[in-house]
Formats: sequence, structure tokens, C-alpha cells
Amino acid sequence: MSQDERSAGDLRNTGLSLRHDRTWDYELERIVEAVEERDAEKVGMQFPEGLKRRAPHVADDLRELLPDGVRVMISGKPCYGACDLDTYMMRRTDVFVHFGHSPMKDSEKIIYVPLFSNVEVTPIMEDATEELETGDVGLVTTAQHMNKFEEMREWLEERGFTVHTRRGDERLTNEGQVLGCNYASADIDADQVLYVGGGKFHPVGLAMEHPEKNVVIADPVNNVVTIADHEQFMKQRYASVHKAMDAEKWGVIFCTKIGQGRWEQANEIVENNDDAYLITMDEVTPDRLRNFDMDAFVNTGCPRITTDDGPQFHKPMLTPGEYECAVGNKPLDEMEFDTFHGTW
Amino acid sequence: MSQDERSAGDLRNTGLSLRHDRTWDYELERIVEAVEERDAEKVGMQFPEGLKRRAPHVADDLRELLPDGVRVMISGKPCYGACDLDTYMMRRTDVFVHFGHSPMKDSEKIIYVPLFSNVEVTPIMEDATEELETGDVGLVTTAQHMNKFEEMREWLEERGFTVHTRRGDERLTNEGQVLGCNYASADIDADQVLYVGGGKFHPVGLAMEHPEKNVVIADPVNNVVTIADHEQFMKQRYASVHKAMDAEKWGVIFCTKIGQGRWEQANEIVENNDDAYLITMDEVTPDRLRNFDMDAFVNTGCPRITTDDGPQFHKPMLTPGEYECAVGNKPLDEMEFDTFHGTW
Repeated sequence: MSQDERSAGDLRNTGLSLRHDRTWDYELERIVEAVEERDAEKVGMQFPEGLKRRAPHVADDLRELLPDGVRVMISGKPCYGACDLDTYMMRRTDVFVHFGHSPMKDSEKIIYVPLFSNVEVTPIMEDATEELETGDVGLVTTAQHMNKFEEMREWLEERGFTVHTRRGDERLTNEGQVLGCNYASADIDADQVLYVGGGKFHPVGLAMEHPEKNVVIADPVNNVVTIADHEQFMKQRYASVHKAMDAEKWGVIFCTKIGQGRWEQANEIVENNDDAYLITMDEVTPDRLRNFDMDAFVNTGCPRITTDDGPQFHKPMLTPGEYECAVGNKPLDEMEFDTFHGTW
Repeated sequence: MSQDERSAGDLRNTGLSLRHDRTWDYELERIVEAVEERDAEKVGMQFPEGLKRRAPHVADDLRELLPDGVRVMISGKPCYGACDLDTYMMRRTDVFVHFGHSPMKDSEKIIYVPLFSNVEVTPIMEDATEELETGDVGLVTTAQHMNKFEEMREWLEERGFTVHTRRGDERLTNEGQVLGCNYASADIDADQVLYVGGGKFHPVGLAMEHPEKNVVIADPVNNVVTIADHEQFMKQRYASVHKAMDAEKWGVIFCTKIGQGRWEQANEIVENNDDAYLITMDEVTPDRLRNFDMDAFVNTGCPRITTDDGPQFHKPMLTPGEYECAVGNKPLDEMEFDTFHGTW
């Protein structure tokens, strides 16, 4: 991940955290109700990176509303999506609140507060139509703007577009929603897709997954329209695969985060390659892998760590599909963008 | 922690990992026996940072000895001591092997392989005697050199010293052993202590805990004798406390690592200070805390994170005792080095 492109749910560089601080609805009344219902003594709160700085204020507001003696605590672990629940905190609190992402899997224990943005989307969509051909267009957005999805659709239809949307798979809560690891909602019958949302993280993934489509980005937060360009990323991917072709020792990473584990896939690689070693970990960072004497790594956890952070690792870091190309099980031209399906 | 001084069990900078690679006894036969006894399908291995690069070789050697189909996996999480077990891996494997540290708490599930060094200790002790006064001397060492402890004691006694040793408390496995967070074995009736071991990490902690004693370091790995100097560290500590005195928002860290949690202590602070917020996390790093809008932090986890990494955090990071001084509950001259007692 470069400094500009962090990860799903990390709002640090999208401007969201800076411009709309006071506009988030933390749904404190829903939390208070759950505390009363469950007679809770401990409330845990988990925020994405870009909203962690709001945590003490939310804690203050919540403590004002809660009965005396209820302990409020904040997760200090990094959090990059609904796949990334702080399970330690979840097990040890009576009410566990996950802010900033839509549910990946419903649970009675967890309160998901999606934090919808109230930024207007139609002004930048107006600019974006200049980059679109008339006719069929796919429409996708992120969790933060889901509250405006029907407004977006109607706005496009009023201007004569035939709007294609779908829900994707069970990893996605909503029609038209994309995640950094899942673009199934863009599997629609149109050669162009309009992405409405902040940053370039999601649309670049979308363009890598659907290289045949023109992906137009209408960014209502930074107020710019751009076309998603995945070529630079693909060059990096090919370079990594070529470098890994000589590897004599492979580190195969199984991610222990609740929504990022692909155990079967990790095991299959290790079972079929005597030079592969299974490494289990939660956060997959360059620092943590530097001490291992491996020639290359395969990451079966979050695909965006591989594609976006890839160049920062000391040895080539591949997706499972890229690994198959590097060891010769598949031809290079069958290399695909890695996505994540299902829940856990 | 500076680059030179990492943490207990991190052998990266002590030279141990470089010079004695082939000399460690990984006790593979003990692991194989346990696998057979338990009819194990999964074996998990956890190495300190400085030995992670040996992990694939140990895995190779072990797989040679194990029945087909037994899955060997390696923990990719950082590991800084026996306090820092990979509990995820421990729960999900049939045999869990923790290398490089002596047991903090016995468990049937865990196989501890201490990895004793075979480096000679008496040549550098010879040099060290020039820095010692005749008469009473305390003797301490680390887990890696415990196998030579009786040899050290006899060698000193033969030269006329009266050697004082003790076991410390239940956090320590052996007589004379010190940890980065526990120097109870140096609570002996002598004004000078001889520390035999690599690096400066342990002896500096020892000197901070026992500022009244002269701590002589006999380092058999780097082959040097020095006197532990804690003054620079103490200046940093006072500077951090002074900076924190103006704090309006305190982040109070509860560490979720199995052997580093001080729940009562963290809660007591939060209960008595409306401006304190409880933050739970495993690895306590500058990166993870940068996003929180706090003016100062109190770390109830590993004391060495506070003292050694302290200057790398963006806001003052204090031990619980230092916090008491910063908020005026205690006078500054009662500031003490933070240590850790008991197991979990």
C-alpha cells in the first residue's frame, strides 16, 4: 500500500475524516439500548484507522448516556474492514460496536454502525457524465455512500442511462456495494462502470478485476472525476511474479483475522510444495516478514496487502493465483486479480 | 526500543543468532515424542525475532522426523518473551512449541525449548573481575546462559568472591535468571552485581531497578566488559513525565498478550480519571497509537516498550508509576522503574 492508498475502511487519505467530522451519526442510542437490554458491564468499540482520533469524543458522549459503572473501551488494533473484527475484544465485552463498515456477517453480539457520509453526490456525478457514453452503465459505491445509492440510480436514469446494478455475493451487505477485496457487484452487462466514492483504492481494484470495463471515478469527497488506471499495478504484479520464479523457499501466509482466512487454499499450496512453509499471523507487514529466511511469499489473506503493499516487502509477495503462474502450474496470461468471497 | 536494544529474547543484535547458528539444540526428539503421544495432526512453532530466520530449516528437520501428513506451521507474529505466546496458534495446534525462552508458566500443551548457548563464559568473566571489588557479589544471567550458571558461581567462588543469588519470583524459572521486566533475582545483599549475558537490554533494566548497585556486564557473545549506565534513560523518563503533566486526554493501554496484562491497574487509572480512556491492544507500537487523539499514554503492558521505545511515540508514554507522578498523586522523587511480577 502506498501512502496515498491505504485500505478499505481506512479513511485517512480520502478526506472523509477531515471534512465531515461532525456529520457522522454514531447511533449512540442504539448502543445504549443494547447495554440496557443486556445489562452490560463492558462496551467495546472498534474504529477504522481514519476515525480512531474521534474515539475519545465518542467515548465521552457515550459515557454521558450510560449508567455509572459501565466500562467503555477502545480497540487499539489496526482495523481495515468488517473482515477485521477485534475478536479478543468481542469475546471479552458484553456489547461490541464496530464503526465504519457494513456487516459482513450478522451477529447478535455485534452492533455495526456504518457511518454514512452526508456529502452530496450529484454535483460530481454531473461532471462524471462527461466521461460516460450514453446507454448502459454499471453503478457501484462504498459503504459510506450506500445511503445515497437510490438517489444516484434515479439521477442517472433521469438523464437517460440504463443503470445496471447487482448485489454481488454474501460478503456484501448491499446492492451496488464494493469492498477492496470484492467487486462482484460490478459483474454487470455494461462496458462502463461509474464508481461514486472517495479515494482510488476501490476503483483501482475494480479496474484490475474488470480490465475490460471503463471505470469512471466520481469522488464526491475530493470533488474530482478520474478514470481508474490499473496498468501501473499490473506491471508491478508481473515484475513480482518474474522475481519469484527463482524462489527456493516459499513462505505461505495464512491470515488469522476472522474474515481473511483461506485455510484450504494455504494448505493446498504447502501440501504440494516441499519448499513451502506455512506462516500464521494477523497483521501482514513488511517488518514482520523481514526476519524470515524466505525467497518469496504467497499471501492468502487480504488481497490488497499483496497488490498495494507488495513493493514494500523485502521479497516478492504474490497472490495465490500469481503463485500458480510463478511455479509454472498456470501460464502467465491467466494471471487474475485476487478477490475474496464468502464470509467466514 | 532503539535499533540496538530490542527486547528480551530478541537476539537480533546480540550476535547470538549470527555466531552460534549451528549450535542450538532444538530438541526435535522431544517434539516428535509429543506428536506421537498425542497423535497430533498440527504442530505450531514460535520463534523469537532473532531466530525466525532459522524457522524453515527447523521445519525441514522436523518434517523429516515426523509421520507423513502432520502439518508444521510457523508463527509470523512478533515474539518478545515467554509472556508473549501466540495463543491463536496454541489453541489451534495439537503440539505448540515455544523456542528461545524458559517457561513462565508450565502447561501440558506447551513445549518450551530454551535454546541454551554453548559459548564459553569464563574468559570474559576473567576480564570482568577487574571491575569488581573483592567480597560480596550478586550473579545473574539470562535464559540462554542458564546452563552455565553453576559453572559461573563456582568460578567466582574459586576466586574468593562471596556469591549471592536468588530465584526471584514465580515469573522466573531459574535461580539467578533475569527478564527484561523482572530483576527480582538481583534483590540480594551485595552492592555489586555481575551480569553474564549478551547485549545491554537486561543490564540497563537491572541498573534502573537497582540504581544503588554497580552492575558489571560480562558479555560472552560480543566479548566485552562494560558498566551498565542508566542515567541517560532516567533523563528521558523525567522528560516524558514533565511533558505529560499538561495532558488533557490520557490513553491507558491494556495489553492483551497472555503474560503482559495488568487489568486491575489499567482499570484503576480509568476509574479515577475522567480524562482517561482504556485502549486494548496486543502489539504496542508508535504506528498504532498515532491515529488516537490523546495527549499522553500510560502503558500497563510490557515495561520495556515504555522505557526503550518511549521516545518513538508521538506523545509521552509513561509507566503506571510515572503516571502517578505526572498527575500529582506522587512526588517526582518517588519515581521507580516499572517491573512485572507473577505469571497470568
